[in-house]
Amino acid sequence: MSSRLKVLSGMLPEYADGALIFSNTNRRYFTEFVSSLGYLLVTKSESYLFVDSRYSEAAQKQAKNCKVVAYKVLSEEMADIISQNGLKNIMLESSAITLSECEHIEKIFAKANASALKNNELDRIINTMRVIKTSDEIEKMHRAQLITEHALTETLKLIKEGVTEKDLALELEFRMKRLGAEEVSFDLIVLAGKKTSMPHGVPGFNRVKKGDFILFDIGATYDGYHSDMTRTYAFGNIGSEQKRVYATVKQAQENALAALKDGVECGYVDSAARTYINHAGYEGYFGHSTGHGVGLDIHEVPSVSPKSDFVLRNGMVVTAEPGIYLPDRFGVRIEDMVVITNSGYMNFASMSKELIVI
Amino acid sequence: MSSRLKVLSGMLPEYADGALIFSNTNRRYFTEFVSSLGYLLVTKSESYLFVDSRYSEAAQKQAKNCKVVAYKVLSEEMADIISQNGLKNIMLESSAITLSECEHIEKIFAKANASALKNNELDRIINTMRVIKTSDEIEKMHRAQLITEHALTETLKLIKEGVTEKDLALELEFRMKRLGAEEVSFDLIVLAGKKTSMPHGVPGFNRVKKGDFILFDIGATYDGYHSDMTRTYAFGNIGSEQKRVYATVKQAQENALAALKDGVECGYVDSAARTYINHAGYEGYFGHSTGHGVGLDIHEVPSVSPKSDFVLRNGMVVTAEPGIYLPDRFGVRIEDMVVITNSGYMNFASMSKELIVI
Repeated sequence: MSSRLKVLSGMLPEYADGALIFSNTNRRYFTEFVSSLGYLLVTKSESYLFVDSRYSEAAQKQAKNCKVVAYKVLSEEMADIISQNGLKNIMLESSAITLSECEHIEKIFAKANASALKNNELDRIINTMRVIKTSDEIEKMHRAQLITEHALTETLKLIKEGVTEKDLALELEFRMKRLGAEEVSFDLIVLAGKKTSMPHGVPGFNRVKKGDFILFDIGATYDGYHSDMTRTYAFGNIGSEQKRVYATVKQAQENALAALKDGVECGYVDSAARTYINHAGYEGYFGHSTGHGVGLDIHEVPSVSPKSDFVLRNGMVVTAEPGIYLPDRFGVRIEDMVVITNSGYMNFASMSKELIVI
Repeated sequence: MSSRLKVLSGMLPEYADGALIFSNTNRRYFTEFVSSLGYLLVTKSESYLFVDSRYSEAAQKQAKNCKVVAYKVLSEEMADIISQNGLKNIMLESSAITLSECEHIEKIFAKANASALKNNELDRIINTMRVIKTSDEIEKMHRAQLITEHALTETLKLIKEGVTEKDLALELEFRMKRLGAEEVSFDLIVLAGKKTSMPHGVPGFNRVKKGDFILFDIGATYDGYHSDMTRTYAFGNIGSEQKRVYATVKQAQENALAALKDGVECGYVDSAARTYINHAGYEGYFGHSTGHGVGLDIHEVPSVSPKSDFVLRNGMVVTAEPGIYLPDRFGVRIEDMVVITNSGYMNFASMSKELIVI
């Protein structure tokens, strides 16, 4: 099988003779080498990974399908390689490079009489590749999901009156990492009571008490790949409106899942969840999108949002995560991560979505 | 005392009538509100924080010294505010905004007949403010350091033959967070044996054995502020060259510290460490800079690097962290984080730098 770098090289448009990859996840995707700084220059015949002295030894051993250039002065080594290869027009990753970095890179290019192409085409090409997951990638995401569920199942046993959101978030994170997670997918969201009305609230010293919802929006990474799942539990007896909101979100989430399959537009999936919530009387209380792509990044293409005409295809991984948030009262969100198939989807998540009273 | 936003507002140059702040740390610095997405528009008389529905409730309660705008369609709400305030020239944070984001923002500005100023002046102004730490910020960094040292002291007790780098890194992280760390400052670096020759190696399943160096480059954050410290320990008896390298790095680090005080150029501090290492016969084996600024970001202005003419001032926080790395054999680094004073510096770190044999 040809390497991802060869595929990319073959996809470069005629008007470009090279591409400079800058983001940590894309460098990792193409070279399998993990670093916090580096520049991957892809031409139509060869690829070069520029790293500084901190990474030179490790990159020589681990980076795949490219020549490693350990630079002392990036502007000199990179300009030399560009000149040697006679590159004239090099695409940049517009979604990753900042204005300052771009200025720096353009000065290097100028030394070698090359120009930067600053359209969004390189991002589009790379997204086209990354959005379709291979079985190897799906296996990693499955392992990330298993770790997440195992850790949550253990952490649920620690819930009792007076425990704080922070306590639960920390215990969950420890367990994920002990179970082999490389990282948490994002700062874990564990919220209780009124705080659940904030879709991206930060766990604090708020103590759980009877009658609260407790919301877990959590995930782990395994070999770079993310998982993402949300579950909302009742702690003790909850009121009738809480039950109604829970049932509404649960049905909306099922509607979104039922809409998923190869060939369907993202906007249609979003509307399957949103219309149900609106008709149930909660219009205006579901402010975010229904879902997003997941992979080496926690948020990737596609966005499962209103009006999106992006078409889902076999092998894409997305979340379905509608919610209802009543300010200063409570909120409920339910989220699964799935991979699209010809006939529908395969759900990475296996934990129950019934209303569970702890 | 006037707010940081008022100070920034007063520092905007004549040719600009607004600034758009985009990075998470700068939004946090100016508003004290923590979020993963948002736009802070600062004019000469007022500031506006634009957040989406996920953050609107929390921002209304927590964001300081600004008006919170919960947007549904950013391009509409932001264009309206720009028009209402008659803003024509708005500075961007060139070091934080990507080319794609810039394109998006420029379209919004165009709707309101405003232009983006894409020089590096806004970054420069903000760095000028952030580089000098207040006593409140120093107190937070001190707490971050105390947590780091407390956790390391406990973790050192777990070192025994056969324990892996990953085990130690995980135990350390758990302890930091149990002790109140918000986050780790970066992926903790715990390396043993040959791996210590990689300045930014990743902890793996490598097991510690007698005769190894074990290197800890670690830090915690407290209320957003980072600490950073490196210590290298001997596990059992080590050889004579290992001892010689350790002694060389230790003296080089002391030389760097001795050079630190208000009014000194960073290049001079770097050379105080580097010259000593070169003269000891290890030229070419210390590939990185001697230090860097620390604060809300783990790497901030200034860079304590060769030839830098940046002048250190009272209240700046920097690291001093020379190292020697012998490929495929071993490496040693010793690092303290200090705050510059008129007469020298105050060291946040209190853990011994003598060669300790575990």
